[in-house]
Amino acid sequence: MSPPKYLTGDKAGIEEFLSRFDVFLFDCDGVLWSGDHLYPKVAETIGMLRSKGKQLVFVTNNSTKSRADYKKKFDKMGIETNEEEVFGSSYSAAVYIARILKLPAPKNKVFVLGESGIEQELNAEGVRYICGTDPAFRRDIEPEDFTNIANGSALDPEVGIVLSGLDFHLNYLKMATAFQYLQRGAVFLATNTDSTLPTAHSLFPGAGSAGAGLVKAIGREPLALGKPSQAMMDAIEGKFHFDRSRTCMVGDRLNTDIQFGIEGKLGGTLAVLTGVSKKEEFLAEGAPTVPMAYMDTLGDLVG
Amino acid sequence: MSPPKYLTGDKAGIEEFLSRFDVFLFDCDGVLWSGDHLYPKVAETIGMLRSKGKQLVFVTNNSTKSRADYKKKFDKMGIETNEEEVFGSSYSAAVYIARILKLPAPKNKVFVLGESGIEQELNAEGVRYICGTDPAFRRDIEPEDFTNIANGSALDPEVGIVLSGLDFHLNYLKMATAFQYLQRGAVFLATNTDSTLPTAHSLFPGAGSAGAGLVKAIGREPLALGKPSQAMMDAIEGKFHFDRSRTCMVGDRLNTDIQFGIEGKLGGTLAVLTGVSKKEEFLAEGAPTVPMAYMDTLGDLVG
Repeated sequence: MSPPKYLTGDKAGIEEFLSRFDVFLFDCDGVLWSGDHLYPKVAETIGMLRSKGKQLVFVTNNSTKSRADYKKKFDKMGIETNEEEVFGSSYSAAVYIARILKLPAPKNKVFVLGESGIEQELNAEGVRYICGTDPAFRRDIEPEDFTNIANGSALDPEVGIVLSGLDFHLNYLKMATAFQYLQRGAVFLATNTDSTLPTAHSLFPGAGSAGAGLVKAIGREPLALGKPSQAMMDAIEGKFHFDRSRTCMVGDRLNTDIQFGIEGKLGGTLAVLTGVSKKEEFLAEGAPTVPMAYMDTLGDLVG
Repeated sequence: MSPPKYLTGDKAGIEEFLSRFDVFLFDCDGVLWSGDHLYPKVAETIGMLRSKGKQLVFVTNNSTKSRADYKKKFDKMGIETNEEEVFGSSYSAAVYIARILKLPAPKNKVFVLGESGIEQELNAEGVRYICGTDPAFRRDIEPEDFTNIANGSALDPEVGIVLSGLDFHLNYLKMATAFQYLQRGAVFLATNTDSTLPTAHSLFPGAGSAGAGLVKAIGREPLALGKPSQAMMDAIEGKFHFDRSRTCMVGDRLNTDIQFGIEGKLGGTLAVLTGVSKKEEFLAEGAPTVPMAYMDTLGDLVG
């Protein structure tokens, strides 16, 4: 593997790098912004790429937000975009369920562990679901629930899929109910399996941690529809029909973003140092995941 | 490994087997009872062993109940016992924290993920703790919690230990708080790591599943104080000072009870078929965990 090229301050190198790609897939958090803090010159950089006719896709593992929610965030940050350019793990999961898995009705309803972002994307794809933000499941488990979950009287016979995402309202009742559906043969999917969620300059439990109890109980892993799962790459390609050799993945995490691009056999990968991974991780001898190029910040593309 | 001896109906074999041991360690659920259903002749069997002068210890991984809670259950079931004979994973954890770990004050408080059984045992050993059944933590996480957990203002600076057990009231707020203590260096303990809890003739998420999110987030396993961890065997021996070669472990689960006895180098292990494991699992060629003897039910000891 050749060492990654350092592009910050290298105008000719940047020019040459950009000329190799027609499509750029962007991770959002840690690349464009951190929480509500926009990194310098991001809006200018996005504008420059558009002026060169590049196609942009914003690829995020955050399952709590829908594409519409993301569009609002882009607007607030002053970055020109449209909803169709956003590809989140909730949307990826909805597309997978509706267009690839296609379980026959009536046993094709989804039991959702997650927030409204998932619900919105399932609605958009016409997928039926229960739980999610339903207040009926936001309560403590009671003694009679154990009996009714175990004997099936508390279950919906049409549920054939359990979809696990980041749920800020997780509880034992939801976990026990989802576990029972899985014991009865439901397909096990996850929007993504990131172990942590970087927030407020610290780390919080991510979707992978919220769903880890279910994985431990049933003893098998879900099919993940977020980065670095190639199921997400296939879904993006199915929608945008791009040439992988002329496509570059831009991200801050080696084991999700950069791995996602490498496994997807994209023409290139570009790491930025504003997020989770440090350059020492990919410059080290024998590093498992090495980007094609790297920069201090995304804004370095416009100097 | 010699094949296990089948003792049901073998009066002479039972007599010889019993003569080899002075101490019997009993698992409870799946051996004495299932939930509120007492298996036949259990009380008689316990009485017979007492009449022969055997020392009995009831060893359970259920962390939601204290020894006092268990004593009440034995009374209700009509089995003669006393609180001192009960050794639960909550008690094991409390003994480990107070007598073995002995962190120096003031940073020796415990953040508890679990129910009142754990609190009672920590109280009995004089260990200070927060959370557990505290209603202040039984609520949804709010935006300001992320900030206050991340910057430490919502944390108790005296917490030096996170103890994870079966918590029927688990939520994201508790998980995020515990994760932050672990990121700041707290010792990570678990009462036990059973993946499932057999209840109502089905399986529900066990302590290991309730704590799996924390394990995934921090990326390391806790020290478990329940079966088959030998930390529990050491704690039992520390209290009862028995001769391991004259001690027999009786249980229904191969990978917890029987493995616990074998790894602890006890003189014998006795499997009963009223619980989780089936005889095919240990009679199979190359079975990893094989008991010394087995019976259909514990009551077979009195015919």
